[in-house]
Amino acid sequence: MTSELQFIRGLKRRFPVRYPVQVGIGDDGAIVDCSQADQQTVVIDMQLDGVHFDLCTTPPQLVGRKAVAVNLSDLAAMGCWPTAAFVSLALPKSMKSPEAFLDRMYAGMEEFATRWNFCVAGGDTNTWNGPLAIDVCLTGIPMGKHPVLRNGAQPEDVLLVTGPLGGSLLKGRHLNFTPRLELANWLIRNYDIHAMIDISDGLALDLHRMMEASGTGADVLADAVPIHADVRSEDRDSSLLHALSDGEDFELLLALSHNDFDRLNSDEDRPQNFHQIGRVHQDRRCQLIDGNGNGTAMNVAGWQHELS
Amino acid sequence: MTSELQFIRGLKRRFPVRYPVQVGIGDDGAIVDCSQADQQTVVIDMQLDGVHFDLCTTPPQLVGRKAVAVNLSDLAAMGCWPTAAFVSLALPKSMKSPEAFLDRMYAGMEEFATRWNFCVAGGDTNTWNGPLAIDVCLTGIPMGKHPVLRNGAQPEDVLLVTGPLGGSLLKGRHLNFTPRLELANWLIRNYDIHAMIDISDGLALDLHRMMEASGTGADVLADAVPIHADVRSEDRDSSLLHALSDGEDFELLLALSHNDFDRLNSDEDRPQNFHQIGRVHQDRRCQLIDGNGNGTAMNVAGWQHELS
Repeated sequence: MTSELQFIRGLKRRFPVRYPVQVGIGDDGAIVDCSQADQQTVVIDMQLDGVHFDLCTTPPQLVGRKAVAVNLSDLAAMGCWPTAAFVSLALPKSMKSPEAFLDRMYAGMEEFATRWNFCVAGGDTNTWNGPLAIDVCLTGIPMGKHPVLRNGAQPEDVLLVTGPLGGSLLKGRHLNFTPRLELANWLIRNYDIHAMIDISDGLALDLHRMMEASGTGADVLADAVPIHADVRSEDRDSSLLHALSDGEDFELLLALSHNDFDRLNSDEDRPQNFHQIGRVHQDRRCQLIDGNGNGTAMNVAGWQHELS
Repeated sequence: MTSELQFIRGLKRRFPVRYPVQVGIGDDGAIVDCSQADQQTVVIDMQLDGVHFDLCTTPPQLVGRKAVAVNLSDLAAMGCWPTAAFVSLALPKSMKSPEAFLDRMYAGMEEFATRWNFCVAGGDTNTWNGPLAIDVCLTGIPMGKHPVLRNGAQPEDVLLVTGPLGGSLLKGRHLNFTPRLELANWLIRNYDIHAMIDISDGLALDLHRMMEASGTGADVLADAVPIHADVRSEDRDSSLLHALSDGEDFELLLALSHNDFDRLNSDEDRPQNFHQIGRVHQDRRCQLIDGNGNGTAMNVAGWQHELS
């Protein structure tokens, strides 16, 4: 039996306060020093048993890892480094050993906190008769001068993705992917990234979001969409559908000028290959262009949650 | 049927971006301008159906109201004004009309957003097979020069509470209380508040927290603890136990010097009466002193969640 006070003492030892956090776990709220940055970014994402992971088959460490990783991916898409994490938990009363679960779950979070120098600075731990729910909020500060939004794509921009897409849920990649923080930082420090978003709900839907926010449209070359080896389909059409709509890829989609794209292509220091998937245009429709140059309207397949 | 994109458009209309929020709902994260404050406070609190409210008997508006109010109470205790709210939701798939629920729930949040000039700047809405869970995170900035912590109580300080305690859960006060933001602001602008905490888990436990953080102890005068009219008990001992341990009062407990307390007492501009309940001392024990001057160790009754 662990009391709340003992549990909090353990968490404070595990996640010692790190700058810019000045006051972490243990008061009514946390205090973050923001004298070094004019802007703070806040991201939040809730992970639910039976929806985003299956507690019967997912080790607690991967549950904790994913709950933080999806938020780090959002911060990467905003062009921000993490500064502090806040973790709210609803633990099922039926859980046999909540202490062991929490210990392993926080170990999964600690991996990232150590790697990217942030701490768990607050949270709220509850027990109830429902399934496991984890809500994680992260604060961050810009890697460059400002955060990068999704609304800055311009006609004639080149669209890139940072890796192959599809099959993430099928093969469990959604539980152990690496958020693209270093890659976002390298891009931002060297190029003028007009717009960026992370591909969490499938390329089709997330591209649609970027184009809607930017007031633009896009042509995507069907043959240029990189398909992940996790996609098992035999034929190209079916594989492409997975790449466009499976979701939980957590790669970045970005828009930059032709000039910057040419510089990037010939940059010998680039940390990896980027995949040019298409271009932005004024016309607000998103089209998929086949090998013969024929376009069809892109279906907003992706993972659009229905509320009823 | 409301799609996620339509739902987000509705939320953006309902909670237009307000300074210091620069980018609200609709990107991968929100951006908060922090050029006007050197410190930001972050609070988070999860409210669960069957634990903190009962969806069968609680109107959605009060559910939304409480989910934000408990966080505003934490901000008041930190001596901070709210700047932005982030709302994560797990909605039961069995909910008959989620749109109607959300509309009313957000109306309960809107009441506070309008009153204290902040906006809902982000969140995450999900459906699942579990009960309703709402996690709210608020950011804030100091009312005075710095936030007020719970660790600054000093020997000889006077301990005050801002209102009568007990019976909150029994009579539903926990659903419609007013967070003490204006009161905290008035106190901070006029006096040197050494330590402050909101009484969410009962005076006994929250006083213990303040004393532990401050490295001090306290004598509480049993006859001086203000008992709320919501407490129904006939005898004083039983009533006192309710006042000490029921929790969810959301009044403030604060420590200030004798000099400041004397000034406060004779301050004709003070917005209400404060209740002096005892004093701080070096000895780290917390004692309850009866009418004959006899002390007994204070039981940390309160609402200390057990993890198993």
